[in-house]
Amino acid sequence: MSSNFFQPVDASAVPRFAGLSTFMRLPAVASAVGLDIALVGIPWDGGTTNRAGARHGPREIRNQSSLMRRAHHVSGVEPFSIANVADVGDLSVNPINLMDGLKRIEDGIADIVAAGAIPLAAGGDHLTTLPVLRAVAKDRPVGMVHFDAHSDTNDRYFGDNPYTHGTPFRRAIEEGLLDPKRVVQIGIRGSIYEPGEHDWAVAQGIRIIYMEEFVRRGAAGVMEEARAIAGTGPTYVTFDIDCIDPSMAPGTGTPELGGFTTREAQEMVRLLDGLDIVGADVVEVAPPFDLGGMTALAGATMMFELLCVLAKSVQEARAREIR
Amino acid sequence: MSSNFFQPVDASAVPRFAGLSTFMRLPAVASAVGLDIALVGIPWDGGTTNRAGARHGPREIRNQSSLMRRAHHVSGVEPFSIANVADVGDLSVNPINLMDGLKRIEDGIADIVAAGAIPLAAGGDHLTTLPVLRAVAKDRPVGMVHFDAHSDTNDRYFGDNPYTHGTPFRRAIEEGLLDPKRVVQIGIRGSIYEPGEHDWAVAQGIRIIYMEEFVRRGAAGVMEEARAIAGTGPTYVTFDIDCIDPSMAPGTGTPELGGFTTREAQEMVRLLDGLDIVGADVVEVAPPFDLGGMTALAGATMMFELLCVLAKSVQEARAREIR
Amino acid sequence: MSSNFFQPVDASAVPRFAGLSTFMRLPAVASAVGLDIALVGIPWDGGTTNRAGARHGPREIRNQSSLMRRAHHVSGVEPFSIANVADVGDLSVNPINLMDGLKRIEDGIADIVAAGAIPLAAGGDHLTTLPVLRAVAKDRPVGMVHFDAHSDTNDRYFGDNPYTHGTPFRRAIEEGLLDPKRVVQIGIRGSIYEPGEHDWAVAQGIRIIYMEEFVRRGAAGVMEEARAIAGTGPTYVTFDIDCIDPSMAPGTGTPELGGFTTREAQEMVRLLDGLDIVGADVVEVAPPFDLGGMTALAGATMMFELLCVLAKSVQEARAREIR
Amino acid sequence: MSSNFFQPVDASAVPRFAGLSTFMRLPAVASAVGLDIALVGIPWDGGTTNRAGARHGPREIRNQSSLMRRAHHVSGVEPFSIANVADVGDLSVNPINLMDGLKRIEDGIADIVAAGAIPLAAGGDHLTTLPVLRAVAKDRPVGMVHFDAHSDTNDRYFGDNPYTHGTPFRRAIEEGLLDPKRVVQIGIRGSIYEPGEHDWAVAQGIRIIYMEEFVRRGAAGVMEEARAIAGTGPTYVTFDIDCIDPSMAPGTGTPELGGFTTREAQEMVRLLDGLDIVGADVVEVAPPFDLGGMTALAGATMMFELLCVLAKSVQEARAREIR
Amino acid sequence: MSSNFFQPVDASAVPRFAGLSTFMRLPAVASAVGLDIALVGIPWDGGTTNRAGARHGPREIRNQSSLMRRAHHVSGVEPFSIANVADVGDLSVNPINLMDGLKRIEDGIADIVAAGAIPLAAGGDHLTTLPVLRAVAKDRPVGMVHFDAHSDTNDRYFGDNPYTHGTPFRRAIEEGLLDPKRVVQIGIRGSIYEPGEHDWAVAQGIRIIYMEEFVRRGAAGVMEEARAIAGTGPTYVTFDIDCIDPSMAPGTGTPELGGFTTREAQEMVRLLDGLDIVGADVVEVAPPFDLGGMTALAGATMMFELLCVLAKSVQEARAREIR
Amino acid sequence: MSSNFFQPVDASAVPRFAGLSTFMRLPAVASAVGLDIALVGIPWDGGTTNRAGARHGPREIRNQSSLMRRAHHVSGVEPFSIANVADVGDLSVNPINLMDGLKRIEDGIADIVAAGAIPLAAGGDHLTTLPVLRAVAKDRPVGMVHFDAHSDTNDRYFGDNPYTHGTPFRRAIEEGLLDPKRVVQIGIRGSIYEPGEHDWAVAQGIRIIYMEEFVRRGAAGVMEEARAIAGTGPTYVTFDIDCIDPSMAPGTGTPELGGFTTREAQEMVRLLDGLDIVGADVVEVAPPFDLGGMTALAGATMMFELLCVLAKSVQEARAREIR
Repeated sequence: MSSNFFQPVDASAVPRFAGLSTFMRLPAVASAVGLDIALVGIPWDGGTTNRAGARHGPREIRNQSSLMRRAHHVSGVEPFSIANVADVGDLSVNPINLMDGLKRIEDGIADIVAAGAIPLAAGGDHLTTLPVLRAVAKDRPVGMVHFDAHSDTNDRYFGDNPYTHGTPFRRAIEEGLLDPKRVVQIGIRGSIYEPGEHDWAVAQGIRIIYMEEFVRRGAAGVMEEARAIAGTGPTYVTFDIDCIDPSMAPGTGTPELGGFTTREAQEMVRLLDGLDIVGADVVEVAPPFDLGGMTALAGATMMFELLCVLAKSVQEARAREIR
Repeated sequence: MSSNFFQPVDASAVPRFAGLSTFMRLPAVASAVGLDIALVGIPWDGGTTNRAGARHGPREIRNQSSLMRRAHHVSGVEPFSIANVADVGDLSVNPINLMDGLKRIEDGIADIVAAGAIPLAAGGDHLTTLPVLRAVAKDRPVGMVHFDAHSDTNDRYFGDNPYTHGTPFRRAIEEGLLDPKRVVQIGIRGSIYEPGEHDWAVAQGIRIIYMEEFVRRGAAGVMEEARAIAGTGPTYVTFDIDCIDPSMAPGTGTPELGGFTTREAQEMVRLLDGLDIVGADVVEVAPPFDLGGMTALAGATMMFELLCVLAKSVQEARAREIR
Repeated sequence: MSSNFFQPVDASAVPRFAGLSTFMRLPAVASAVGLDIALVGIPWDGGTTNRAGARHGPREIRNQSSLMRRAHHVSGVEPFSIANVADVGDLSVNPINLMDGLKRIEDGIADIVAAGAIPLAAGGDHLTTLPVLRAVAKDRPVGMVHFDAHSDTNDRYFGDNPYTHGTPFRRAIEEGLLDPKRVVQIGIRGSIYEPGEHDWAVAQGIRIIYMEEFVRRGAAGVMEEARAIAGTGPTYVTFDIDCIDPSMAPGTGTPELGGFTTREAQEMVRLLDGLDIVGADVVEVAPPFDLGGMTALAGATMMFELLCVLAKSVQEARAREIR
Repeated sequence: MSSNFFQPVDASAVPRFAGLSTFMRLPAVASAVGLDIALVGIPWDGGTTNRAGARHGPREIRNQSSLMRRAHHVSGVEPFSIANVADVGDLSVNPINLMDGLKRIEDGIADIVAAGAIPLAAGGDHLTTLPVLRAVAKDRPVGMVHFDAHSDTNDRYFGDNPYTHGTPFRRAIEEGLLDPKRVVQIGIRGSIYEPGEHDWAVAQGIRIIYMEEFVRRGAAGVMEEARAIAGTGPTYVTFDIDCIDPSMAPGTGTPELGGFTTREAQEMVRLLDGLDIVGADVVEVAPPFDLGGMTALAGATMMFELLCVLAKSVQEARAREIR
Repeated sequence: MSSNFFQPVDASAVPRFAGLSTFMRLPAVASAVGLDIALVGIPWDGGTTNRAGARHGPREIRNQSSLMRRAHHVSGVEPFSIANVADVGDLSVNPINLMDGLKRIEDGIADIVAAGAIPLAAGGDHLTTLPVLRAVAKDRPVGMVHFDAHSDTNDRYFGDNPYTHGTPFRRAIEEGLLDPKRVVQIGIRGSIYEPGEHDWAVAQGIRIIYMEEFVRRGAAGVMEEARAIAGTGPTYVTFDIDCIDPSMAPGTGTPELGGFTTREAQEMVRLLDGLDIVGADVVEVAPPFDLGGMTALAGATMMFELLCVLAKSVQEARAREIR
Repeated sequence: MSSNFFQPVDASAVPRFAGLSTFMRLPAVASAVGLDIALVGIPWDGGTTNRAGARHGPREIRNQSSLMRRAHHVSGVEPFSIANVADVGDLSVNPINLMDGLKRIEDGIADIVAAGAIPLAAGGDHLTTLPVLRAVAKDRPVGMVHFDAHSDTNDRYFGDNPYTHGTPFRRAIEEGLLDPKRVVQIGIRGSIYEPGEHDWAVAQGIRIIYMEEFVRRGAAGVMEEARAIAGTGPTYVTFDIDCIDPSMAPGTGTPELGGFTTREAQEMVRLLDGLDIVGADVVEVAPPFDLGGMTALAGATMMFELLCVLAKSVQEARAREIR
């Protein structure tokens, strides 16, 4: 079966700097049909309130993902052997029209979902997750494991504007896309607009694990709770690169000191194992503010970590179907 | 009379790196009332189709403008002695709502115009010039001297979107803000979408002086024609930093090889002397793509060059009134 | 009462990149009169023995401080509601005359102290702390909590020069500005000139906590001791950014591998709570050696952390006075 | 006829930052069969004696070539309408085995030539031109127009090593690939190993036009002579990016002050019109030493300039065949 | 005795930025005769499969090593008082001929060994360690403590090429230079080519301590085992800078997320104390990819840490001889 | 005779990145005795009023000077064959004591002069030229050819401070070191403190050639006049790197738009041929503000250009003596 799966170019045969730049050196395909997991770029930052640049994220994440190899050194998972994965390119976007931009992203992800593939997206700013959820959670609310420095559940900006990268999850809850009781936010930190900034989110049932709680409990403890919150239902995973400390991921729009190390982030993502993940993304990689591709490399590596978890989940689902 | 004019901080008394950062180290004032010339920032790039970042332009132009001194070494003009000039801060902007953004800019410039001051703006992308013209040319169309690599008279982008930094002057002509027969574009170059890309502009009466013609004729010849085209009527001057070669102004959204040297640009702006300038701007300085502040320094210096021409124009107008 | 306090510009109303750049987007005021806490820049690096550039620190710290918001997410402190805080600009400096430079800084801080405000300064190199102490500790020696990679208690450089950024605290003790028995230095590390380099400091009574001791004991343990050393008397807090690891704060003159993470630094500063802090500074941010503003952001964030502690201290002092 | 030609993605429909990165946003194809002109990357710098990095050239040139549009603003040429052009990807290379690397490049270009397409290559260091010539000039020596700061006709390096980026054209003449009397080198400058360094080249019949002669005569005069030297026979064009001044093209291995401006380089390439060009390349773009993509943008633009000349040549050849 | 040892320039007398740049500001000497420890550069990256640049490592490590002082703040070791140490310059290399490059390095190190000095080398890519071992282990296999993200025991690349920076230790074992049962690799991590990638190494007897095991056990536990593995026999120490996290050492060819902090690396190297070290190196510092000299500073500091351990070992050996 | 002259390392034998970094890869010698021309670094920026960093100039100029070869491609001069040239290292400096700094530089240059060598210095800021002149012109005033954006003849800064990099030539004239009637300043431009800023200089007899006059007349005309002004007497040449346009030399303290191209600067320096040059310098290269070493490369190349002129002058003087 796996003999027909797409395979990445092997860096011991073709050097990493050679060839067209695709996610993890996989083939670029025109459609998600036949894929288990579709790697997709969403080059859009229409919701960014401060430093734009996440529109350039997918291209640089592709470049840095040339450093990924075929197997995970801890779990032993070989994602490309147990799932059919390819690069479906970038979604069509509109950098100057917010509402059209949201529509295009929703449509693009809907095509992937309709093809039976799980989207693993490279953003884009965090507002991109809203239209992704509109496609992925169209039929029922999903749970969410959310790694971030910010809760992104604010209400309005610059007057009465409801759609920014600071508001996607308030909108998603209002639209019934998320089941807030199955949502956990991990790594929240940094100065806030007002002491009650997170009250609305908490009142909806979201569990916020601040950075300080993470430091006390560690990855294993936190992720045990996170998995319990997400439960066995369909779950989305969103990884805002600014959850990582700015020294390790400087290329982002709203850096906050005191974040996760990449080691901590990797450990947490590995502990997502066993969830029923229906989609995932890595967002807010903003190359114009990056240094030496460090943030894009972190983004690419986190995509690989997510991919290994997703691929194993696909394999297990397939095994269940066969039984 | 001049004893009441605002003066910049003197760098031989207070070093350039000290003190709050304002345009040319002038006082920051809350309103344009009482000013002859209002230096104003427009930190907005809502119309950018490729690389955003001009929203950060005003801050970096202010930083680099600390290198300006009090007098022009060629013309001998002392702008701060013959005109009242200050930094009126940044206009209120909206980074995520294009139509609201346009409105806020128009309102902000209208306030300056109503106060009797001439706006000298630091953008912002080139779409910012459209709402500036709506305020400056509200009562009658104006002429325009336009330094740029691009004509910016395209029609629609990404479907049916009329407002981008590639379309401001088509809109301005349609809205009756510009008299196309009094418009000259200098420095146009680079690959184009189609051979007829500039036909509409030429048909309206705009005179396009391509870079190659400039190379043949030189600054003096070109500017003699430009002054003749603009004539004696009210004229706006817009300076897109990408008219300068990318090696000298890399920090911009749409670089095109083969541009003006800064020496050529300075010579041309000095030859604007004698026009009736009702407003001016320097746009498309995009700090996230800048190198060592080089582009912001070019922007700040071109603002100083424009200021010297404007101040002399103010002085002459005042002299005429007194007579 | 708090209704008259200065408030920062709200980033959900005006984007962070807009407006003049001041500390934490607070108003710029001409004098410290009426303030509880004066944020002040000291753009001077006249004592730097290796890589200069801290003279540019205040400007970049101001830029990056636009990312600060109104409330502390752990302590819940809202500094701008419980204390009157503003940006009093930069002190007058002299970059080419060391003795005049020291005098100007002392005078500038003396004005702030005379106005009844507590100075929270952004340096500048570490020699700036000496004239600050001359103003703050004019009437009696103070204790000091000192975060740094270096003890800065050397004696002479380049022959017989007593004033450099490697000597301020030796001079301060000699001048009776510091009570060495109430001084603790935390984070000291890196190769040293000779094994006995710190003997003088220890002989005076200074407690040096090397990085390796910190790693063993953790922030809570170390800070418990630090608070005990500082005691209930008036205490100065000086935060040399090079106490943080160079990977997180590369923009400094004398980087030393193996420093604090920002998370550790934040935890320690939060544990200053309860001290009687009469002044504080963040020094040695050198933007010409910074990468992507990372160090200036660390400096700005540490200033915010210090501000929250200071504001609470002001609030408590006011409460005591009222009783 | 042209309706079947490949077309680039239109930037007014899909933003330049979106989509996979190919040369000029053309389709990526698996073979040169059916193409008139094959854009090909040669990511190899095995012959570099100082600063390596040209191996990364093709990827960054592709990225920057997203700024190219469909038509040439001076000649009016629409290359994609008059010739079938596509991106055939990168040649297979070997970064650690020089002789195998040379063989792979020769084989790869031979495939393109066999398919009937003209190769327009993005290097790679200048040694890559030797195996390209082995494929292109297999059957008869060719003439060459060579833009460069260096003659690249040295003999041996580091002992007795014949193949480096300083020796390709000595080897090519020895191998009978170049007709030295039809070779012109333009822009040569910089300090030399010894006064007679170029004697061998001149003795073979190569015409060297030093930078100083270019400055005196100008592009038109120099190119008239260059066209006469190349004559009507098959001619290769090689454009070493270091012919351009390092301020405009810093990302290269052996920068030499005092080079061409990009404006001059563009003018010269446009004057290649009418030659029988059988292949061309842009080499020595070394992204690790580039600043803001400036050099890669220059490389991409020079490729576009070369492409317009090539396409017109293809069109004229086709017209001749039809007649 | 120590009065005749070479001493570094004192930074409190001559500033760090002044004077020729040598390792740790030591004298440059023409030969290793009379030295206990020879600091030597190996500017060669002929085995690099992806991003070259380690050829520039020695120069930048020298520059950054100007920040080192005379004594170790933890161990109290004064290396320059207990061992004669100097900078013997760079080995002769050949950047375009792999086999000649290997030969030149072996010969250069053999000269140092013949002079009775221990080489402490600054690479260069990791393939440089193979010819170093050929010189150091000529007479008998040695043990090795190996800090790295990669095992570097692969077999062939790009066809049948046996010598790359991914293969040195497979070759070294095959050549009998290493006793694999006395080899420990610490910090291995990152995606791998295939699940069995390390099987060959393990089968030889190499002990691989993955990063995750290090995180669980800590430096003390891991190094206790490492010392036991290396035992009392002659041991080589090789420190690949990519064992450190890319955020702290970005300037390297094959970065892998999730590495050691510099604090952890320093702690481990200090725990090498007591081994019989016959040579050591710091490799894979690639300045073209570095940020602000951060990686070269890490490399220089790790060299200083290794030097302190080596010098103490020299001192103890001398003491044993005297007895 | 020339057989005993020092020779640079040959880049076709030893790659440019290898070996200790000295000026033009010449031997480092301890004293100027026996030299005709002494290349010397002056790592000092104690007079800098804005952006410091020229203290790091000599090190980076040395690094970039590795790109220089043995012969001049236009004049054919082989400087190392006709004059004995070596790197005498850096002068002893004091970064924190201005008056001691001036003294040390004067003493250091006096030693070179006493040894009978001509100093060719790499600064350092422009104040370094004052103590150099004190040594070189001790016995009689000299003429000077001065390339610069600024006249550097101001009087006082920051109160009553007479010594800054804006004042050296006022002091030099007051001290009788310069004969103002034999001084020409070329390239002066940029905004000025007041219209009469240069009146004092002109009144002394200095000839100022502004950039605009240079543009009109060209290098040949300007240099003919410059040679006439300097005449046959002893002449010093000082080359402030900021005379070159900031796009070509961004790494400097006080950049001014519209400067010389490097091509123009090279042409002018070549036309110094025939003067009796008693010393020369290249100053104001400030690496912390440089981009990619571009400015240091310009500085190194201008040193090479100056060296060729100096060496020929030495050769001719020797010929005269022999006759």
